[in-house]
Amino acid sequence: MDTTTVKAFGAESKTADLKEMNIERREVTANDVEIDILFCGVCHSDLHTARNDWGGSKYPAVPGHEIVGRITNVGAEVTNFKVGDLAAVGCMVDSCRECENCKQNLEQYCTQGMVGTYNGNDKHLGGHTFGGYSEKVVVDKNYVLRVPENLDLAAVAPLLCAGITTYSPLKHWNVNENSKVAVVGLGGLGHMAIKLAKGLGAHVSLFSRSPEKTQDALDLGADQVVISTNEEEMQKVQGKFDVIIDTVPYEHDLNPYVSTLNVSGTLVLLGFIGNLESIISTVPIVLGRRSIAGSLIGGIAETQEMLDFCGEKNIVSDIEMINMQNINEAYERMLKSDVKYRFVIDMKSLKN
Amino acid sequence: MDTTTVKAFGAESKTADLKEMNIERREVTANDVEIDILFCGVCHSDLHTARNDWGGSKYPAVPGHEIVGRITNVGAEVTNFKVGDLAAVGCMVDSCRECENCKQNLEQYCTQGMVGTYNGNDKHLGGHTFGGYSEKVVVDKNYVLRVPENLDLAAVAPLLCAGITTYSPLKHWNVNENSKVAVVGLGGLGHMAIKLAKGLGAHVSLFSRSPEKTQDALDLGADQVVISTNEEEMQKVQGKFDVIIDTVPYEHDLNPYVSTLNVSGTLVLLGFIGNLESIISTVPIVLGRRSIAGSLIGGIAETQEMLDFCGEKNIVSDIEMINMQNINEAYERMLKSDVKYRFVIDMKSLKN
Ligand SMILES: [Zn+2]
Ligand SMILES: [Zn+2]
Ligand SMILES: [Zn+2]
Ligand SMILES: [Zn+2]
Repeated sequence: MDTTTVKAFGAESKTADLKEMNIERREVTANDVEIDILFCGVCHSDLHTARNDWGGSKYPAVPGHEIVGRITNVGAEVTNFKVGDLAAVGCMVDSCRECENCKQNLEQYCTQGMVGTYNGNDKHLGGHTFGGYSEKVVVDKNYVLRVPENLDLAAVAPLLCAGITTYSPLKHWNVNENSKVAVVGLGGLGHMAIKLAKGLGAHVSLFSRSPEKTQDALDLGADQVVISTNEEEMQKVQGKFDVIIDTVPYEHDLNPYVSTLNVSGTLVLLGFIGNLESIISTVPIVLGRRSIAGSLIGGIAETQEMLDFCGEKNIVSDIEMINMQNINEAYERMLKSDVKYRFVIDMKSLKN
Repeated sequence: MDTTTVKAFGAESKTADLKEMNIERREVTANDVEIDILFCGVCHSDLHTARNDWGGSKYPAVPGHEIVGRITNVGAEVTNFKVGDLAAVGCMVDSCRECENCKQNLEQYCTQGMVGTYNGNDKHLGGHTFGGYSEKVVVDKNYVLRVPENLDLAAVAPLLCAGITTYSPLKHWNVNENSKVAVVGLGGLGHMAIKLAKGLGAHVSLFSRSPEKTQDALDLGADQVVISTNEEEMQKVQGKFDVIIDTVPYEHDLNPYVSTLNVSGTLVLLGFIGNLESIISTVPIVLGRRSIAGSLIGGIAETQEMLDFCGEKNIVSDIEMINMQNINEAYERMLKSDVKYRFVIDMKSLKN
């Protein structure tokens, strides 16, 4: 299969800094869309994959799954995109398309495993997939998204992971103008959860351990901030929330949050994949028909719905723009939560 | 307030056997219904309350919240019941009627706390409420249920707790003819879960640790039995179930069951109220949008719906009838799960 060499930024091993390298992209086949990448958001998964924190990383690792750009070529069978269109790619570039979940537009839960935008099995070239820290990407048309023209394109990029990851559970658990939503954690996911829940018309609270985040949360649209270390404030919100979007990326005690759920309420874990060492009490769960649940990104159709919704409601991420060459420093700052709220790489910097 | 003395069976202290005693029942007020109790099911809660296993028991404790009988008197404002009608009373005899939950027919989650049929705060006489181990009960018309005439009355009694406790989550989590349901535990709750899920048209599996229960489960209507200690059988059901009804009344590891849920599936805890000492992995929860939830009995309207449904589908409990005088022995057997599947007291035995 014919390929083109493009510039990328990646890690040669789990201990190596990311640096410039060349990778191969396939020539567009009949159903492919080629995108000139303009901006790429920086997700925690990028860092964890580069450093093999979860195991299973393949090298060179070229991260990036919050991709926006402009289409430079389309295959013969592509009718829904044309050269010059804005386009976006999120966390996956393919899936089996045949399983029960794929058929229900839940490709993220494909029983064969979705093909990740990076570190996935490349069906076309063999080897593994390379992400958005690169000049171009070639993706099957069914996994390419349209981007509303009215939004700041750089600030759209984080919608492709942080946006859909929070939008999908808000929709699945029926958040609307009658809902009371609380968000735990104010990072890339948390700040999008606030904006999207507000966009859906909900009353939105942020749980925070530190009062310093109060003004930021209110600026993002939160209706109130509940200081979770303050017993009195926690008492006031017992039984109050329909949905809690928990974005905390490390093990933490869920019990204080569960009891703030209303009857039939659901706490949705988005950030932490691992063992909940803290003992969970079933008392508020049984006595209030409450649920502890989880959710993973969203399907392709739902991602498009989210982008269209953001276009309508003028919702984008709050971002800090960086050059590709500053990615290693950005990772260090991200580990300290020193970003409001998402780094986005200006991919021009790679081309220069 | 005028009262009548009636015979009952109760415990004078947490260490005392249950024995015959007299209690007072109020004279019917305008909205009351007086029921001559014909049968009363024996629930695990009865035993735990008699023995103060959960703390908070008041003495004398007269248990019993699976009550069926015939109406002997109604108040002036009662139009929906008349003398001679069959009637039933379940786990509650009142609630605040004003909170958000009561207004939504979710009286079991009343924010003021529902008034339990026994060990609750008696609004009329002061002191605490006495349950169905007695000749008569007087209950507000809004908390009295109608009983289908076509069912075996004794076998209806357990529907009032075991029945509604399993029916409510099956309905809340949308079980229908397209659903795959699994049940954990084959006791009073578990056997009703099988019957009701089958009644709703679902494909029903029982998880069991012992192959000896296989035939019993199939006889009750289960489509298959999965031996949970058999790794191969468990592998076959990974990702299979939409809803798991977990009736196990003690702490147990949920992880093996969670991974048998389908995407968006829910495991509902009904039997265990306490701390889950086993560490829960969020991996299958996040990667499959699965939920761990709980549920408590059901509201009054839903209990009526369940009784009507059972009338239509000819569903009752499998019971073993006992005399009131054998209740202490029945408790011992119940502790050993030595009953198929619910004891029901023939209340004639108390009157003799
Ligand atoms: Zn991501
Ligand atoms: Zn699939
Ligand atoms: Zn009961
Ligand atoms: Zn109430």
